[in-house]
Amino acid sequence: MKIWEKGFSVNETIEKFTVGHDRELDVYLAPFDLLASKAQANMLAKVGLISETERQQLIGGLDELLAQVAAGTFLIEADFEDVHSKIEHYLTEKFGDAGKKIHTARSRNDQVLTAIQLFIKDYTERIAAKLLALAKVLLQQAEVHKNDLLPGYTHFQAAMPSSFGLWFSAYAEHLLLDLHLFEAAYAVADQNPLGSGAGFGSSFPIDREMTTREMGFGSAAVSAVGAQMLRGKTEKTLAFAIAGAAGTLGKLAYDLVLYNSQDLGFVTLPKEFTTGSSIMPHKKNPDVFELVRAHANRLQALPNDIILATSNLPSGYHRDFQLLKELLFGPMMQFADLLDILLFALPEIKIKPGVIEQAKYDPIFSVENINQLIIAGVPFRDAYQQVGRAVEDGSYMPHREFQTTHLGSIHNLGLAEIAGKAQRWKEGSRLFARAAY
Amino acid sequence: MKIWEKGFSVNETIEKFTVGHDRELDVYLAPFDLLASKAQANMLAKVGLISETERQQLIGGLDELLAQVAAGTFLIEADFEDVHSKIEHYLTEKFGDAGKKIHTARSRNDQVLTAIQLFIKDYTERIAAKLLALAKVLLQQAEVHKNDLLPGYTHFQAAMPSSFGLWFSAYAEHLLLDLHLFEAAYAVADQNPLGSGAGFGSSFPIDREMTTREMGFGSAAVSAVGAQMLRGKTEKTLAFAIAGAAGTLGKLAYDLVLYNSQDLGFVTLPKEFTTGSSIMPHKKNPDVFELVRAHANRLQALPNDIILATSNLPSGYHRDFQLLKELLFGPMMQFADLLDILLFALPEIKIKPGVIEQAKYDPIFSVENINQLIIAGVPFRDAYQQVGRAVEDGSYMPHREFQTTHLGSIHNLGLAEIAGKAQRWKEGSRLFARAAY
Amino acid sequence: MKIWEKGFSVNETIEKFTVGHDRELDVYLAPFDLLASKAQANMLAKVGLISETERQQLIGGLDELLAQVAAGTFLIEADFEDVHSKIEHYLTEKFGDAGKKIHTARSRNDQVLTAIQLFIKDYTERIAAKLLALAKVLLQQAEVHKNDLLPGYTHFQAAMPSSFGLWFSAYAEHLLLDLHLFEAAYAVADQNPLGSGAGFGSSFPIDREMTTREMGFGSAAVSAVGAQMLRGKTEKTLAFAIAGAAGTLGKLAYDLVLYNSQDLGFVTLPKEFTTGSSIMPHKKNPDVFELVRAHANRLQALPNDIILATSNLPSGYHRDFQLLKELLFGPMMQFADLLDILLFALPEIKIKPGVIEQAKYDPIFSVENINQLIIAGVPFRDAYQQVGRAVEDGSYMPHREFQTTHLGSIHNLGLAEIAGKAQRWKEGSRLFARAAY
Amino acid sequence: MKIWEKGFSVNETIEKFTVGHDRELDVYLAPFDLLASKAQANMLAKVGLISETERQQLIGGLDELLAQVAAGTFLIEADFEDVHSKIEHYLTEKFGDAGKKIHTARSRNDQVLTAIQLFIKDYTERIAAKLLALAKVLLQQAEVHKNDLLPGYTHFQAAMPSSFGLWFSAYAEHLLLDLHLFEAAYAVADQNPLGSGAGFGSSFPIDREMTTREMGFGSAAVSAVGAQMLRGKTEKTLAFAIAGAAGTLGKLAYDLVLYNSQDLGFVTLPKEFTTGSSIMPHKKNPDVFELVRAHANRLQALPNDIILATSNLPSGYHRDFQLLKELLFGPMMQFADLLDILLFALPEIKIKPGVIEQAKYDPIFSVENINQLIIAGVPFRDAYQQVGRAVEDGSYMPHREFQTTHLGSIHNLGLAEIAGKAQRWKEGSRLFARAAY
Repeated sequence: MKIWEKGFSVNETIEKFTVGHDRELDVYLAPFDLLASKAQANMLAKVGLISETERQQLIGGLDELLAQVAAGTFLIEADFEDVHSKIEHYLTEKFGDAGKKIHTARSRNDQVLTAIQLFIKDYTERIAAKLLALAKVLLQQAEVHKNDLLPGYTHFQAAMPSSFGLWFSAYAEHLLLDLHLFEAAYAVADQNPLGSGAGFGSSFPIDREMTTREMGFGSAAVSAVGAQMLRGKTEKTLAFAIAGAAGTLGKLAYDLVLYNSQDLGFVTLPKEFTTGSSIMPHKKNPDVFELVRAHANRLQALPNDIILATSNLPSGYHRDFQLLKELLFGPMMQFADLLDILLFALPEIKIKPGVIEQAKYDPIFSVENINQLIIAGVPFRDAYQQVGRAVEDGSYMPHREFQTTHLGSIHNLGLAEIAGKAQRWKEGSRLFARAAY
Repeated sequence: MKIWEKGFSVNETIEKFTVGHDRELDVYLAPFDLLASKAQANMLAKVGLISETERQQLIGGLDELLAQVAAGTFLIEADFEDVHSKIEHYLTEKFGDAGKKIHTARSRNDQVLTAIQLFIKDYTERIAAKLLALAKVLLQQAEVHKNDLLPGYTHFQAAMPSSFGLWFSAYAEHLLLDLHLFEAAYAVADQNPLGSGAGFGSSFPIDREMTTREMGFGSAAVSAVGAQMLRGKTEKTLAFAIAGAAGTLGKLAYDLVLYNSQDLGFVTLPKEFTTGSSIMPHKKNPDVFELVRAHANRLQALPNDIILATSNLPSGYHRDFQLLKELLFGPMMQFADLLDILLFALPEIKIKPGVIEQAKYDPIFSVENINQLIIAGVPFRDAYQQVGRAVEDGSYMPHREFQTTHLGSIHNLGLAEIAGKAQRWKEGSRLFARAAY
Repeated sequence: MKIWEKGFSVNETIEKFTVGHDRELDVYLAPFDLLASKAQANMLAKVGLISETERQQLIGGLDELLAQVAAGTFLIEADFEDVHSKIEHYLTEKFGDAGKKIHTARSRNDQVLTAIQLFIKDYTERIAAKLLALAKVLLQQAEVHKNDLLPGYTHFQAAMPSSFGLWFSAYAEHLLLDLHLFEAAYAVADQNPLGSGAGFGSSFPIDREMTTREMGFGSAAVSAVGAQMLRGKTEKTLAFAIAGAAGTLGKLAYDLVLYNSQDLGFVTLPKEFTTGSSIMPHKKNPDVFELVRAHANRLQALPNDIILATSNLPSGYHRDFQLLKELLFGPMMQFADLLDILLFALPEIKIKPGVIEQAKYDPIFSVENINQLIIAGVPFRDAYQQVGRAVEDGSYMPHREFQTTHLGSIHNLGLAEIAGKAQRWKEGSRLFARAAY
Repeated sequence: MKIWEKGFSVNETIEKFTVGHDRELDVYLAPFDLLASKAQANMLAKVGLISETERQQLIGGLDELLAQVAAGTFLIEADFEDVHSKIEHYLTEKFGDAGKKIHTARSRNDQVLTAIQLFIKDYTERIAAKLLALAKVLLQQAEVHKNDLLPGYTHFQAAMPSSFGLWFSAYAEHLLLDLHLFEAAYAVADQNPLGSGAGFGSSFPIDREMTTREMGFGSAAVSAVGAQMLRGKTEKTLAFAIAGAAGTLGKLAYDLVLYNSQDLGFVTLPKEFTTGSSIMPHKKNPDVFELVRAHANRLQALPNDIILATSNLPSGYHRDFQLLKELLFGPMMQFADLLDILLFALPEIKIKPGVIEQAKYDPIFSVENINQLIIAGVPFRDAYQQVGRAVEDGSYMPHREFQTTHLGSIHNLGLAEIAGKAQRWKEGSRLFARAAY
C-alpha cells in the first residue's frame, strides 16, 4: 500500500528492489513521525484546513499508535512500504476523510525529513549523556590510579614516565572535546523542515513557526529548498560526530590491547572478559577491546559512506537518499553499544603496580637527569648532549625521583579543571537542556 | 641542522625521505611558532627558568623574525629540517646560552602542536568570515531574484514551481549551518598544549595558565597525554568542517553547471567565465563551476585521508603525524580559494527570465490544481487521484496562478529570518570574537 | 558452545558483543567449510593422523550436513557461536573421538580463511558470468539501436552527435574491463591457506599440496605467516573489484536518470518501472535507476570500509578481522542484486527516435562543418576559427549529414571486436574455467 | 596560449583557478604526448589527411622535443596552459600549416587520455619491476634468517614460535599477489583511446588500428563513448593497485616499528637510520619505518580520493577530470619512493638472535606440548584441555624442541615455490614483456 497509488501496479521485482529495508528501519522513526503528525494536525486545525473535530480524531488516533510504540506492539505490516503509509492508512481506516487530510500541505519528503531530524536530536541527546557518563568514569579511574606509573611511549618506544592518572584523564578530556561535533550535529538537526513539502513549499496558509515551537525545534529551516537540502546533511554531520568520538574510543581500546600483551603487561583483564584460542590453551585474548577498536575504525568510515552515497547530486530530492537510513541507523546503534560496553568494562580493568621499575625502562628517566643539570645551571642543549653521551657509552644512571607541579602533569592532574569543563557542557548546551542526565 | 643532533649523521637517503615537505609547509606555521615562543620566553622568565635579560633578548630576536615574516623575507634555508630548528638556531647564533634555553620545558611535540593550534584558530576565523560574506552575497542575490521562477526538480524531473529567491537563500542558510562544524573545529583548536612536552609533561615549575592566557587560548589542554592526542584530532575536526562546507559549495556548483546547459538554460555565464573546446567552436563550458564542484568533492575526501594516515595508532606521538601537514595545508588553501572564486563569480551570473513558461513545464503546476480542489473541500487523497487521472488522459490544464504565504515559500522568503541567524553567529560565537568582520 | 572452552564462562554481556552477527553471516560459509573439512579429513587419513574408519565417518557426517545445506535445512542454533563450532559439535556428538580429531593440525584461523577463500572464488565466478551476460545484453541493445542518435554531452552541454549504439556498446566494453579486477580478486582467493594454522604452521606432518589439489586451489599460500595475511587482503581485493564495476553501473544509471528527465527526454521507462510522488500526480520517477546509482555509489565506499576496519595492524591475527564478514557479505549480495535488476530492466527501456533533430541541438553539428572545410583544404585551426565566428554571429548553419568510418564511431561500432574481447575472457581466464556460463 | 582561442579573453582570476597545477604535472606526460603525436602524424599521412612532407616535418619537430625531454631541457613556459598547447605551438611556429594539422581528427580529450594511458603503462611496468626486486630481497633475507626464531603474535599476544624466514617470505609472497592488481591496471591502460575525439568519434577516415599497433597498445578502446569513459577509470584502477601494495608495505613497516621497540626488541636499525628526540637523548626512533607506514596508509586513501572527485557524473567529459592529474601523479611518485627506500633499508636491518628464549615466551610452546600428547594418541580436544589446565595451575613446562615438515612452515619455508611464482609472473605477463628486468 503506497500513498501515491494511482491505478497501475509497479512491477513486483522493481518494487522489492526499491522498497529495500525501509520497513525494518522505519521502526526507529515511528514515534517521531507520530509526534510530528500531531503537530501537523494541530497546526492544520489552527489555520482552518481541518476542523476541530477532525483534529481531535487525528490526535486520538496518533496517540493510540504512540501507545503501541511505547508498549512495543507497533508493527509495520508487510503490505505497507514504510511507516508513513502505515500511519496514514490507520487514520484513514478509522476516521475516513479526516485521515485523508493529515497529508494536506505536507509531502512525504518533509515528513520523512522531520522524523529524521527529531530522531537524530533525540539520539544525540542520549549519546551526549553517555559520553559525559563515560568521561566521569574515566575521571574516577584517573583519581584511583593517579599514583600508578607506566612508561609513556613515543614512536612505540618507551620515552618518559607517565601515569594512569594522566592516561585516564586524557581520554575523559577528549570525550568532552568530542561533544563539540555532537553539538554541531544537534544544531543541524534542530532545524524544522516541516512545511517545506517536496522542497518548494506550497500555497497553503500553514504556520511553520507553530510546528517549530510545538515540536521543540530551535528554529525553522526557512527556505523550502534549503529545508530539503538537510537530507543527507544532518546525517553527514552526525556521522562526523560519531566518527570523531569513535576515533577516541578506538585509540583507548588500542592502548588497552597493547597494555594487556605479555611484552608490556601494564593491565590485566578479568578472565571473564577474555576469549580463548582453538589451538593455544594459554591464550586469553582481549577480544572485547579488539572489537571496540575494529568497530571504532569502521565507524570512522561512516562519513565517507554517506558522502559517497549522496554526493555530487544537484539540489532537490533524489531517491538515492533512501539509502541514508540503511547506512546510518545500524552504525548509530553500534556506536551506542560501544559506549555501553566501555561503561561496563572500564571499571573492571586491573592495573599492575610497579611496572615502571623494570630495568628495561631505565632510559626513560633521562629527561630527569637533564633537568637536574639544568637546575644546576647547564643550558638545556648542553645538558642534552651530556646525558646523551652517557646513554651512548653506558655510564648512564637513571634519576628516578621527580616531582611535577604544572597543570596536567603526573603530580598535578587537574582533574577538577577537567570536571569543570564537563560541568560547563551540562550547563551551557542545548544538548543537555531537556533532561536531568 | 637538527635540534636533536647527537654526534652521528643520519643517512642522507633516509634524511631526505624523512624530512619530506616540511620546509615548504612550515612557512604557514612560522608566525604562530614565533608567537608561541614569545609566550614561552615570558613564562620561563616569570617562573625563574631564565633571567629577565635573557627574556628581553629572546623577545627581541623573535620580534625580528616576526617582522621578517610580515615583510615576506623570512626564509627556512635548506640546511634546516624545519621552522623550529631555524628559529632556535637564529636565537642561539645571536644570543648564545639564552637561545639554547628557549627550548627549556618544551619538546618539539608540544611546540609543533601549539603552532598548529594557533594556525588553525586563525584560519578558522578567516574562513568563518568568508562564509558569512558569501552568505550575505547569496541573500542579496535572493532579494534581487525573488521573482525569477524556475522549475524545482526532484528525481531530476521538473516537479513544482520554485524560484531563484528560494534557491539563493537555501545556500545562504546552509552556509550558516556549515559554521557549526567550524565552531567545533575552533573549540578543539582553542586548547593550549604548550607545556605538555613530549606528551607526559615535565618536572619544571612552568605556568601553563599563563601561556594559555597570553596566547589567547580558551583553555589549557589539561592532561599532558591528552594534549598530545590533539595531534590529528584538531586536523580531523577541521577536515570535517571543510568537508561539510565543501559539500554545500559542490552542490551549488553542480546546480549551476546543470542550469547552464542548453537543455535547462536557466542561467548564463559571462563569456569571460567560460572556456572553449579544442574542436567544437560553439562550446562555452562552465569550467569554473565544474572545477569548484571537483575540488569540493575532493575536499570531501579530506577527512578520510587524515583518518587513514593517523588512525589505529595507540596514544603517544608517532612520526606518522608529520604527514598531517602535507595532507591538510594544501587543501586548506584550496578551500579558501573556492570561497574566493565564488565570492567573485556568483554576483556575475545572469538569470534568464520566464523560463518556467515553457510548455514542457506545464505539469509542474499540478500541485496547484490539487490545492484548488482541496480549497473547494475535496479531501487531499481524492484530489490527488483526480488530477492524476487528468494528467494521464491528457485533459490536464495547468493552474499557473498561485500565491504562497508560509515562511520559506516563494512569496515569503524569510530573508530577514535568515539574516538574523547570521547576526546571531556574529554575536554569539568565539569564532567572530577577535575581529571586526 | 565454543571450541576453545576451558572451564570458565565468558561474561554474557561481553560474549553477546563479541559474537556479533557471526551466526547469520556464517550461513554463507557453511558449504565451503564443509568442503574444506572433507579435504582436511582425507588428508589427515593419508598422512596417518586419523584412521581410514575415522575418515569415512567424518566424510559421511560432512556429506550429511552438505545435504542439509543443499536442502535449505542447515541451521546454526543459538547455542553455537559460529558455523565451525556447530560442525565440530555435530561430528563429535555422532562419532566421538573421530569428531574431536577433525581439528587436528588446523586452527580456527586457517579454517575460516579457507572457507572465505572458497566462498569468494565461487562468488567471483558467479559475478563474472553475470557481468558477461550483462555485456551481452548491452551489445544486443547497441545493435538494435545503432541508428538512434542522441546528442553527446561534454561539460553537461550538448557537444556532438552520438548514438545509442555507441552508448550501449561503451558500457558493454567497460564491463569487460571491469572483469580484470575480478580476475585479480580471484587470483588472491585462489591461494590455499589450509594448514597454516594460527599463522605459524605446525609440527604435524600434513600434506598441504594434497588439500590444495582436492579443493581446486590454484596454489598453496606458502608461508604460514603470509597465509594468515590473506585475511583482509582477499576481501579488500574483491571490494576493489566490486567498487570498480559499481562505478560503471552507477554511471549507466545516472545517464538513464538524466535521459529520462523532461528536459532531455531521450528514453522512457515502462510505467510499471516508475514510482510516484505523494503530492505530485504527474510524477513518474525513475527510482529504480536512482537506487542503482545510490547503491553503486555506496559500493564504491566498500574498499575504504574494509581498509579502515583492518589497516594499520601488524601481521598476525586480530579479532578485528571478524568485522570483515559483516562489512563484506551484505554488499556482495547487494552488488549481485544490482546486476540482476539491470539484466531485468535494461531490455525494457524505450528509446525515443529523432530527438537529435530539435533545433536546440543545431550547434552540435559544428564539428561536421569544420570537417567539411578541412576536406576542402583549410587547416584545422583556421577552420575552427571560421566556424566559431559563424556560431558567434548567428550565421551558422548545421551540417547534419555525415558518415563515419573509423572503428568505434557511429557508423562502424565494432561490436564484433567487442564481442571478441568477451570471447577471449571466456576462453583465457580461470574465472570461467569451471562452468559452462 | 590556448588551443581553443576564439577571440575573447577568459577572465584572469577564472583562468588562474581553472589552469591549476597543469603546467607542473604535464611534465610527466610530455614524452608520452610526443610519442602519441608521432603515431598520429604517421597515421594522418597514411590515410591522406596530411602529405608525406608534412609528416616528415612533424616527426622531425616531435623528435626534437623528445630529445629535449631526454636531455632535461624541455620546458612548458608560463604562457602555455598545458603541455599540449606548448607542443602544438612549437610545431606551428616551426612548420606553419603542418603544425596546425597535427590536431586533425583529434580532440584534446583523446589526446590527454592517450598520453595518460601511455604514462600509466610505463609507470606500471617500472613499479612491477621494483615489486619483483623487493620480493627478491625479501626472499634472500628469508634464506639468511631462516633459523632466527621470534614469537608469532595473534591478538597482539605472543602465541606460537615463528621465524624471520616465515616473516620475510610472507611479505615476498604478498608482493607477488599485489602484482595482480597492477596487471589489472595495466590491462585498462593498455586500451588505445586515440581517435575517439571528444568522446563521440569523428567523420575523418582515420585508422585507429594503425595507431594502436604503433604505440604498442594491446587493443583499441573501441566505442568512442567508452574510450572517453576511461578517464578516471584507468586512474582508479591504478589507485587500487597502489593502495593494495601500500597495504602490504604498511604492515611490514608496522611490524618493524614494533619489533624495534624496547619491549619486543627483535630487530635493531643502524643508528644512521634512526632519528632523535629534541628532549630525550636516549631515543633512536625508527622514523623511516613510521613514515613508510604513514605514507602507505595515506596511499590507501588514494582510491577514495579519486572516486570522490569523479564519481556520480554521467558519461562524457567533465572538467572535473582535470583534478585527476593532481590527485594521482604525486602519490604515484611517493609510492615509487616507498619501494626505493625499502629496497635501500631492508638489507640493513639487524636481527637479534635468541629472543625466543626469554622466559616470558614459555607459553608459546604449549601447542607443541599438545602435539606431543596427540602423537601419543590423545584426541586433540582432550590434549588441549589437559595443557590448558597445566598453564592455568602453573605446572606447565614448555616443550621447546620441535621440527616442522609441511610446506610453508619454519623448517620447510618453500622459498623455491615462492620464487617459482615470481618466475611465472616474469614469463606470463604483458607487464614484463617489454624489458629485461
